[in-house]
Amino acid sequence: MAAVHLALIHYPIVDKHGDCVATSITNLDIHDLSRAARTYGVDRVWLVHPYEGQQQFLATVLEHWRKGWGSDYNPTRREALDFTVGALDLNEVYAGITAQHGTSPLFVATSARSYPNSISYPDLRTRIDDPNGPPICLVFGTGWGLHPEVMVEMDLILHPIIGRGPWNHLSVRSAVSIILDRLLAGDMQR
Amino acid sequence: MAAVHLALIHYPIVDKHGDCVATSITNLDIHDLSRAARTYGVDRVWLVHPYEGQQQFLATVLEHWRKGWGSDYNPTRREALDFTVGALDLNEVYAGITAQHGTSPLFVATSARSYPNSISYPDLRTRIDDPNGPPICLVFGTGWGLHPEVMVEMDLILHPIIGRGPWNHLSVRSAVSIILDRLLAGDMQR
Repeated sequence: MAAVHLALIHYPIVDKHGDCVATSITNLDIHDLSRAARTYGVDRVWLVHPYEGQQQFLATVLEHWRKGWGSDYNPTRREALDFTVGALDLNEVYAGITAQHGTSPLFVATSARSYPNSISYPDLRTRIDDPNGPPICLVFGTGWGLHPEVMVEMDLILHPIIGRGPWNHLSVRSAVSIILDRLLAGDMQR
Repeated sequence: MAAVHLALIHYPIVDKHGDCVATSITNLDIHDLSRAARTYGVDRVWLVHPYEGQQQFLATVLEHWRKGWGSDYNPTRREALDFTVGALDLNEVYAGITAQHGTSPLFVATSARSYPNSISYPDLRTRIDDPNGPPICLVFGTGWGLHPEVMVEMDLILHPIIGRGPWNHLSVRSAVSIILDRLLAGDMQR
């Protein structure tokens, strides 16, 4: 199986007016994404934000659960957060994954629109199941979604998540969980 | 297709010591579960808590997004929360679903353990796809999980979510999202 990484982008993001903004790192995103990633064997969760103060906030949360009072209170939370790291931008994620695996990653995002480089869940699953394949980094946006300047850097775009009907305004916590399950759950479960 | 409901239980819940406790309704659970439920065509989300003050908190949040400032700021959030209601206990959920559909529901929970009434995801999916089947109410716990006195009231118990390996300490927001996707996503997506 190829290595799978997960990146949550806080800048550049679009807001409801389509303007380019930075969003805040939230405590619950750190926990929910890390717990889902640990469940599905994701290598690392990268929380991407260019501001030093936001990275300091992330470091404080991680320290509490890895080494502080929280590590004794809830050891499974420590295990979940052991693979969570900060990065200032996607270039740092790219360099980190390349250094770890000796191969540069493919960046894969999701979008509600179709692109020339769109890929289905079964096809990406087949790629991940190839032990000689490159690392896959799943990229998720906060706010109203990834800014176009990030989208054009993506190697592949996953089809949007469709439930029953056209309404699909999922939280990023739900979207990450569902996509990890679609790509990485054992066949016995499905 | 059978009607599907979702209930999030805040009492009786077990804490990390196995003691019976009530947990608080959280703002983000209201939003994340409602958004996932709307995406997958769930009939209603029931937030179950016996305390009047907690139900008042829920009512305030719902009012803000359905009729207050939030309804104009984010109309899709209003659409998500239109199907979210409070209930004091599971009896009220049972009575409400029975009154709505004219048939009493099956209660289905998840558990990390095996039970005599365990059911797989494909088998429950088959039941849901039966348009003449009874309503299905998926029941989720907060805290460290549903108290045994709730578990014994369940008609069916879904297999635990397994990702890659034995570690599966997902947030309830992730678990709800994954289970709705496994049971209700279209075949084209999988």
